[in-house]
Amino acid sequence: MTIDSFPTLQNDLILRAARGEAVERAPVWMMRQAGRYLPEYRAAREGYTFFETCRMPNLVSELTIQPVRRFEIDAAIVFSDILVVPIAMGMDVKMVAGTGPVLPDPIVSPADLSRLRSPDVDEELGYVFDAIRVTRNDLEGCVPLIGFSGAPWTLMAYMVEGGGSKSFSRARSWLHLEPRASRQLLDKLTDVVIEYLLRQIQAGAQMIQLFDSWAGLLGPDMFRRFELPQLRRIASALKAAHPEVPLTVFARGAHYALEDLVESDYDVISLDWTIDPAQARVRTQERITLQGNMDPAVLFATENVIRSEVRRMIEGFGVQQYIANLGHGMMPEHDPDRAAVFVEAVHSISSQLAESQVTTQI
Amino acid sequence: MTIDSFPTLQNDLILRAARGEAVERAPVWMMRQAGRYLPEYRAAREGYTFFETCRMPNLVSELTIQPVRRFEIDAAIVFSDILVVPIAMGMDVKMVAGTGPVLPDPIVSPADLSRLRSPDVDEELGYVFDAIRVTRNDLEGCVPLIGFSGAPWTLMAYMVEGGGSKSFSRARSWLHLEPRASRQLLDKLTDVVIEYLLRQIQAGAQMIQLFDSWAGLLGPDMFRRFELPQLRRIASALKAAHPEVPLTVFARGAHYALEDLVESDYDVISLDWTIDPAQARVRTQERITLQGNMDPAVLFATENVIRSEVRRMIEGFGVQQYIANLGHGMMPEHDPDRAAVFVEAVHSISSQLAESQVTTQI
Repeated sequence: MTIDSFPTLQNDLILRAARGEAVERAPVWMMRQAGRYLPEYRAAREGYTFFETCRMPNLVSELTIQPVRRFEIDAAIVFSDILVVPIAMGMDVKMVAGTGPVLPDPIVSPADLSRLRSPDVDEELGYVFDAIRVTRNDLEGCVPLIGFSGAPWTLMAYMVEGGGSKSFSRARSWLHLEPRASRQLLDKLTDVVIEYLLRQIQAGAQMIQLFDSWAGLLGPDMFRRFELPQLRRIASALKAAHPEVPLTVFARGAHYALEDLVESDYDVISLDWTIDPAQARVRTQERITLQGNMDPAVLFATENVIRSEVRRMIEGFGVQQYIANLGHGMMPEHDPDRAAVFVEAVHSISSQLAESQVTTQI
Repeated sequence: MTIDSFPTLQNDLILRAARGEAVERAPVWMMRQAGRYLPEYRAAREGYTFFETCRMPNLVSELTIQPVRRFEIDAAIVFSDILVVPIAMGMDVKMVAGTGPVLPDPIVSPADLSRLRSPDVDEELGYVFDAIRVTRNDLEGCVPLIGFSGAPWTLMAYMVEGGGSKSFSRARSWLHLEPRASRQLLDKLTDVVIEYLLRQIQAGAQMIQLFDSWAGLLGPDMFRRFELPQLRRIASALKAAHPEVPLTVFARGAHYALEDLVESDYDVISLDWTIDPAQARVRTQERITLQGNMDPAVLFATENVIRSEVRRMIEGFGVQQYIANLGHGMMPEHDPDRAAVFVEAVHSISSQLAESQVTTQI
């Protein structure tokens, strides 16, 4: 199946922004926009475990499209989890309510790497590609569909730590204790991630985001030594095969990595809320599209506060080469109506600003 | 009691480094050096709860001095906890094993602020000052004694969140929802912290460190609006009363705050391991002493790795205007022998580097 056989895309705003083309307003979506804060999400998932849900293409499509129905957002992101990759490699992962992911049999010694298989991604992760195909059709060209994967270090962090953690100190120390095995593991993960993302694109993903949620725990030296080469390799491999598909990297907490990530084949750098928008522009010299970065905690505040924070954010980033988003994901406690305020504020404020810029230029 | 009545100080290396005076090697200590990783600590505390321990001056002195006996460190830090301040203001704080601090009755609405008393610090926190006096005597002038407090935002974070948290999203959103009440609370906390630290100095603390453990969750704009003025006010008040006592601020995760913190009355900025040492020097223009910042996870690695990381760190910071430390606290799982390697490596490597610099200058 080729991309052409899907319904025609009606809103390519986010793709244009990612490529650095001129836009009339900032595109907007929200990380974890398909999630527990939506009553329709909780209703649809009832009776299924998290990973069961991931394996049901029609349900994935429904969950992916729910926020698109509710909000005027410019992209959908396929409902899934980064830990499907370790599962595909043979690791046991349980999603425990209130605790998060648990990997009961983590990587402890280098010998444990032999337990990891090099998966046939079509066999082990075919359910994701099926879900992408179904969702792409169901979206009817309304907005582009984003595919994603966890980044190698972030996947390794869970695989070595055995689950979520505040500081992943076991995984961090493994890099120092077992640098060779760490590199082997990261190389292997990178190979799988590349294959996984290529297949997502072939299945219909129109944009890709790499989530390096724990990049900020590495510090600048370890990030440069262990993770940056892997991130760059992933982008180059995807670009070589699919130059038309925009690539986003979200190295959360890695404030030190901005300049290094510009020197790569990514089209978009996604930022957490600890990065000042205007400074990020200066540091990246307008050579790349930036995405982000409102603190999700602002969505607990009043409409006025949300609007003024959105204005501050867009004035800092500018309307061009920019994708509005949060600096981290939606939370289960969020009120969907406040998310609607966020989206609406991006529309109106960025339209205004884009217009005033055009006027100024004339 | 005046400072003069204590035993004469024999090692003022850390005080000289903090003041920017020339040193023959880098002073070194470790955050949370008095802790569960030491068998003698676990033995001494047996049978007492955490906050009971804090209220026993002789036991506090023993715990504070234990690491000084074991390692060739250049400072002791009084054993206590940042949450003694909310306790003094009338809040209930329980230390739950495996969970950390729990505040069962957190600040929920602005009206809750009226529950907080303005404590007579001598009455409510006299046990800390007693412990400082006892410890100062017991130390026999061996090394300086550091006093400390939590910073206003970090204390507020626990008081609003009701305990520890990965992201303190409730506390973060309170700043947006209740900016007036937040400022009132921060002002009140700042008043108490200033009084508390002044009394610690009068009791015998020879250096002060302010722990802003959750500063990194604020982001640059909220940090500047809410916390920076409080941090500056604390330093100015202490300096006005005791210009001879060096002041350190540790705004963990607040990579964006470096330049702002230089513009304050702090003598030392303590850094976490996400800040590159050489870059920190450039950003602070050698106007301030820097402290830090080895990743504590490195202490799980081999001696060779520890030594090479110490070398990288000291070469980045330079030997002058520098205090060697970790980028965060010691962990219960650490091996004391590896901490000894860290301390020894700082001694030998920084001595070498200091000597070669002198030689070069001649």
